[in-house]
Order: sequence, then C-alpha cells, then structure tokens
Amino acid sequence: MKRRAVLSSFGALIGASAISACAQLETTASEPLPAPKEIRGTGDLAVAIARADGKVAIIDTTDQKIIAEVPGIGDLSHASIVYSRDARFAFVFGRDGGLTRIDILAQRITHRIIQGGNSIGGAISQDGSLVAVSNYKPGGVKVFNSSDLTQVADIPCDSKTVGLVDAPGQKFVFSLWDKGEIWITDFSAGNKAAPAITRFENIGRNPYDALITPDGRYYMAGLFGEDGMAQLDLWHPEKGVTRVLPNYGRGEKKMPVYKMPHLEGWAMAGGRAFVPAVGRHEVLILDTNTWQEVGRIPVLGQPVFVMARPDGRQIWVNFAHPDNSNIQVFDSETLEQLVHLKPGPGVLHMEFAPRGEKVWMSVRDSHEIHLYNTDTFQLLTKLSLPSPSGIFMTARAHKIGL
Amino acid sequence: MKRRAVLSSFGALIGASAISACAQLETTASEPLPAPKEIRGTGDLAVAIARADGKVAIIDTTDQKIIAEVPGIGDLSHASIVYSRDARFAFVFGRDGGLTRIDILAQRITHRIIQGGNSIGGAISQDGSLVAVSNYKPGGVKVFNSSDLTQVADIPCDSKTVGLVDAPGQKFVFSLWDKGEIWITDFSAGNKAAPAITRFENIGRNPYDALITPDGRYYMAGLFGEDGMAQLDLWHPEKGVTRVLPNYGRGEKKMPVYKMPHLEGWAMAGGRAFVPAVGRHEVLILDTNTWQEVGRIPVLGQPVFVMARPDGRQIWVNFAHPDNSNIQVFDSETLEQLVHLKPGPGVLHMEFAPRGEKVWMSVRDSHEIHLYNTDTFQLLTKLSLPSPSGIFMTARAHKIGL
Repeated sequence: MKRRAVLSSFGALIGASAISACAQLETTASEPLPAPKEIRGTGDLAVAIARADGKVAIIDTTDQKIIAEVPGIGDLSHASIVYSRDARFAFVFGRDGGLTRIDILAQRITHRIIQGGNSIGGAISQDGSLVAVSNYKPGGVKVFNSSDLTQVADIPCDSKTVGLVDAPGQKFVFSLWDKGEIWITDFSAGNKAAPAITRFENIGRNPYDALITPDGRYYMAGLFGEDGMAQLDLWHPEKGVTRVLPNYGRGEKKMPVYKMPHLEGWAMAGGRAFVPAVGRHEVLILDTNTWQEVGRIPVLGQPVFVMARPDGRQIWVNFAHPDNSNIQVFDSETLEQLVHLKPGPGVLHMEFAPRGEKVWMSVRDSHEIHLYNTDTFQLLTKLSLPSPSGIFMTARAHKIGL
Repeated sequence: MKRRAVLSSFGALIGASAISACAQLETTASEPLPAPKEIRGTGDLAVAIARADGKVAIIDTTDQKIIAEVPGIGDLSHASIVYSRDARFAFVFGRDGGLTRIDILAQRITHRIIQGGNSIGGAISQDGSLVAVSNYKPGGVKVFNSSDLTQVADIPCDSKTVGLVDAPGQKFVFSLWDKGEIWITDFSAGNKAAPAITRFENIGRNPYDALITPDGRYYMAGLFGEDGMAQLDLWHPEKGVTRVLPNYGRGEKKMPVYKMPHLEGWAMAGGRAFVPAVGRHEVLILDTNTWQEVGRIPVLGQPVFVMARPDGRQIWVNFAHPDNSNIQVFDSETLEQLVHLKPGPGVLHMEFAPRGEKVWMSVRDSHEIHLYNTDTFQLLTKLSLPSPSGIFMTARAHKIGL
C-alpha cells in the first residue's frame, strides 16, 4: 500500500511558497468510503459547480433533480470537470490549484490535492489513466494517475500554461502564455515520468486560451498580444504552427484578458465553426476546411459561449455583462433567430443532453439551474443551487478534447 | 400496478401465427432482482453477442475482461443492441422477434417479450423513453416503453420494415421493403399511441437497409431493386426524397440481399463518407456536402463494414466470405494502407473505444474477441466467447442514430 499524507482541511487556500511541499499531499478520509447511495448507471448524471460555496451538485438528468451535494472543493471560480472512462469519477480543477476526485456514486471526495498555487483547467488522457493540470503558479503542467492522484510527471516550462487539452495518441497539448509556445507532450511510450515533448516556438504573443476541434486534429490558440490565431495541425506537426483568422482578436478596442471569449465556446457543426467575435456583438462563421470567415450573425451583446445543439441544427449564444441575462438561439442554416430567452441574471454556462433534446443552463445570480426543451424552448424545470457555473454531463467521458 | 403475464421459456421461437397473442407478453422473474454484482460506473462496459448460444457477454473494457454472461436471449443472428440513457440497460433486438431488456449491473434479464415473428433491428428514442422494433413478420413497427417494455404504439404498414433509426425531435424513421416508402414517425406530441406519421411514397424499389448520418440529418436507404440511394433530408422533409449516388448498387452482378453491405457500415469523417462498394472490391469515397463520389480505395475483397476511428484518422475495413479473416486499415488522408491484419476466420464486427485508442473485434469462427491498439496495431488481448458477432459499448447511449 502506498503511504498517504492526510491534509486535514479541504479547500484551504495556500500560497505559492507552500506548493512544492504540498504538491504530493493527498487528502483521503480516514474511514473507508461509504457504499454508494444508490445502485445505478452513471450515463445520465451531471455535476454542476456551485462556485461561491466550494461545492458541487450531482444531478440526475433523467429525474431532473439534484441528488447530492459534495462540499469542500475549494475555490471554484472558473472550475472545470473531466470524467473517468467509466463515468464514475469526476475530476474537478479548481482555481486554487486544487485537483479533486469525486466518486459520484458514493457522492463524496475520494482524493484531493493542492497541486499548484493558481491553476486553470485540465484534461484526462485518451485512455483515461492520466489527469493533467495547467498552472499559472508555479507554471508548467503536472500529470497524475487518475486512480489515486499520485504524481506521474512534472513538466516545468518557466511560464503560465493555458489551453491544456487531451489529444488522440495519449497526448496533452498546451500553450505557454509567457513564452509564446505550444507544447505537445506524448505519454504513449513507456516512461510516463518523461513524456516525449515537441515544442513550437514563436507561435505569437501571449496565448490566453486554446481549443481542439472535436476530431482532435486542430489545436488553436487565441493570442492576447496579437491578432489571428495560432493553429497546429496535429496530423502534421512537421508543418509547424500557422497563423489563421488574421482578423480574429481585432475588436473595437483591446479588452482585458478576463473579458476574452472562452475558446471552448466555439461551436463546430456541418463543416462550419460558429465563433464569438472578440469585442464585437457578432458571431463569426468560419469554414473549417479553409478556416476562412464565411459569414457573421449580429447578436445582442458580446458573446461568450457559442454552442451548437448536438445535431448542429441550432446555435445557442450567451453573453458577457451587461447582457448576461439573455440567450439567443439561431437556426444554423438560415441564421435567423429562433428564440430570445431571458433566463435571468448571470447566465454562465449551457450543457446539452448528449443527443440534444434538452439543455441545462446555469443562472448564477438567481441561484438556479434551468432545463429547457430545445424544440419547444419550454422551461421544463428549475433547480436551486447557489451561484451555479459550469454544468458537466458524464457523456463527456467519451469525447475527445473534453 | 400493471398486470404482467409471465412467459416461462426465454428465447422460444414462436411462429407468426402466435405473434398477436404474444406481442404484449412480458417475461419477468418471479423473485426480485438480485443486487448488482458490483458497484460501478457503467461508462466503460460493453455487451457482445454470442450468436450461436443465444447469450450475451458483458465486458469491462477497462479491465479487458468478460465479467458476466447472460443467457436466454433467443435467436441472435443479426442481433443488435441499444442502451438506456443511464447506460445501465441494454435492449437486445433478436432475429426471432424477441426484445430483451438486460440490466448490465445486475447481469440479468429484467424483461423479455416476443413482439413479432421475425424482426431486424431497433432504436431508442432521443429522450430514452421509447424503444422501437422493425418487423419482417408481421411487418410494421412496434414501440415500447423503455422502462418495462409495455407496448406504446403499433404502426402496421403492410410491409416488412427495414432501416429503423432514431432521429432528433423524438422521431423514428424507417423504410418499407414491400412498398418502396420511407416513413417518419414523430412521438414528440402528447399521444404516444398515435404518433404523427409522414409518408414518402415511390422512393425506389425494395429498400433493404438504411443509415442516418451522425448528426441525424440525412436518412439514406439502399435499394435492392434499383441503383442509387433514396435520401431524405430530415431538416427539409418538404423537399421530399431524392435519389443520390446514381451508381451505388451497381455491382459486377446482382447480389442476393444477404450479401449486401451493411449500411450502418458507412464511415463519416471530415466531410467525407467511406462506403463499401456493392459487388466490387472497393471502398467509395463520397463528399458529404454534394454526395458525389470523389475517390475510391481498392481493397482485397467485398467490404462489409467500413469504419472510421473516432478521430477520423484511420479507416478500418472488414470483408465478406471468403476474405473475412482479414482487416485492412487505411490512412484517411493519403488513402495508403497502414496495416493488413489477419485476426482469424469470420471477422464480423468492430467497435472502437469512444475516444479511439483501441478497437474490439469479433472473430466468429475462432470464438474470440480481440482487442487492438489502434496506434501500434498490437493485439492487446483475446477473450473467449462462442461465435461472437456484434460488440456494443455503452457510449452508444449518447449518440444520435445508434
């Protein structure tokens, strides 16, 4: 048995100076885990972040109810989640460097570590065995066993890292904010502590976020310091990083980085990408073969997430403050508005049922999660949750780059 | 409580004359179901058909082991499976008209009915509430509650039905072999016993199978009696059924219907479809915007299933007798052969891990299921199972048209 140090206080904020000492700590309950609350399949479960309270809610999306809350997960502003391949364990990436493994059947934390001082986002490897976290402080990327959060690899790079994604071939790809680089780390060979690293330098100034296309082929980083996006074709890394979308990033005026649209908020459907314009009240439409702009949709505010219903028939858009109580839905073919919803103040996130018949929506400032029928746009139910942000269905376990 | 008749013998073949009397019978164990064998997530489970023995095997794809066998499922030649939205229940469509609901956590049958005399294939509705079965005898389609297999709707149509699929908007779509029609049945309104039906007549002679594109937009039926395929754009049913691929179906000579390629065996990747040619040793490449042929790959035999690795990077092909001990894998971009595998006699089916790192393969006549790494093409393990055919992972629960 591996020896484990026990950290008594879940979710404690710790300074960067304590990081290296704590990086391998693992918080584990002293008593054995209780039996799962209920025998059930895990395909229809979701986890929603309650950001202000440092907790998550587990949602049964069939019964449309919150079935449990799990507290003690630290600073959950900008938190995200990935799932184990059996769809039983949720890995929560907190802003405070916390990495928390939750058993959604037992409805409790199994492992929690503070792996960095300030982190943003993570990913799970193609085979589900590795979980990677990108760090602002101390920078770099750390990689852990998904079974127990023991550390597998430490990849320092003298830079904040952003836009960390998994890619086919047991790879993680990420960008270096301070150095303008993209790194591919390949864990497919034997020595997981020393992955093969491919570096791409001079990709542009200050990549602030990135995305990977749903097929896992194109990795694209947004640049805070320059216009255009840095694109890497993972089928052809030998061709290097190219600049695409030369006008992307040119808003009316430069925006602070926290106002930049999320790059995960790109919708890919039917050979087109629907993309939030930066600093403009528009959704850009790109041809994903040429990556040229082929159209625009005027919208009511600065779009944040632009999401396609899973069948690609509809495009759903939410907005930055002061327009963040609105949702606009467009026909992806005619580009006409189908409906203008006003769920309430602070619509932060949308998550479609994997086959698209419904959409879950977090309405932060009314402390509600809403569920809509995507054909009738009828509000089906509201769930109470303090300051909800991200909502993540377990079907993500089976997707590349999510 | 609904009263249930108990059918004592699982898997009994019954004649067409007994169908109407038996259609509502439900086989339920007299004792309560045992507890699941193991508390676990269901995201990494698969069910494989052992066709000669009327049983299925439940596979843990993480541990790469068969964890249970469930017997008593009748005639499983050409059987297929869909999953409940919680990925706990598998619905097995048998050739004998049997519809069987299996709890893969409890590892046993919960309900089984003989709903027709000779059936082929079924589907589960977008919201997971309805299971539909298409029948050769007595023809038509029957629809059942997914929770208990009670009948919801009977849709007679004086024809064998084929190519039954689910489509967005709580629809089922199927084709009428004897009458040359395509029907859309819409269960989104209140009265599930009387779905709205849209009929398309004169679509071509003897549709023998059909497919729906992964986005749920295009329904395409192969025609046994004519060349070309009948295509229905479900985004625009008002435009009617059009004929596409005018040369599709023109083989060197006419083939018996049982030798026709499976239309589920089309691979869609990156705006192209990779399609088994009929009666020729070729894979056709189609542009999915224009549905025009844009290329061909010569292969070693009559292809049956042409499948894309989930990232679209590779095309895997298996073959009809006498070449059915082979697998060829092609690069989807260069169209070059990457590897020629010889797993053994009777390679019937392939199922990729949802993120593509591995592929499961049934090798009927050596009574084995093989698992390959899709990057190295290394054989990772073999499992013993008598006459395996279809392999179905639970991630299908979350896909349109599967």
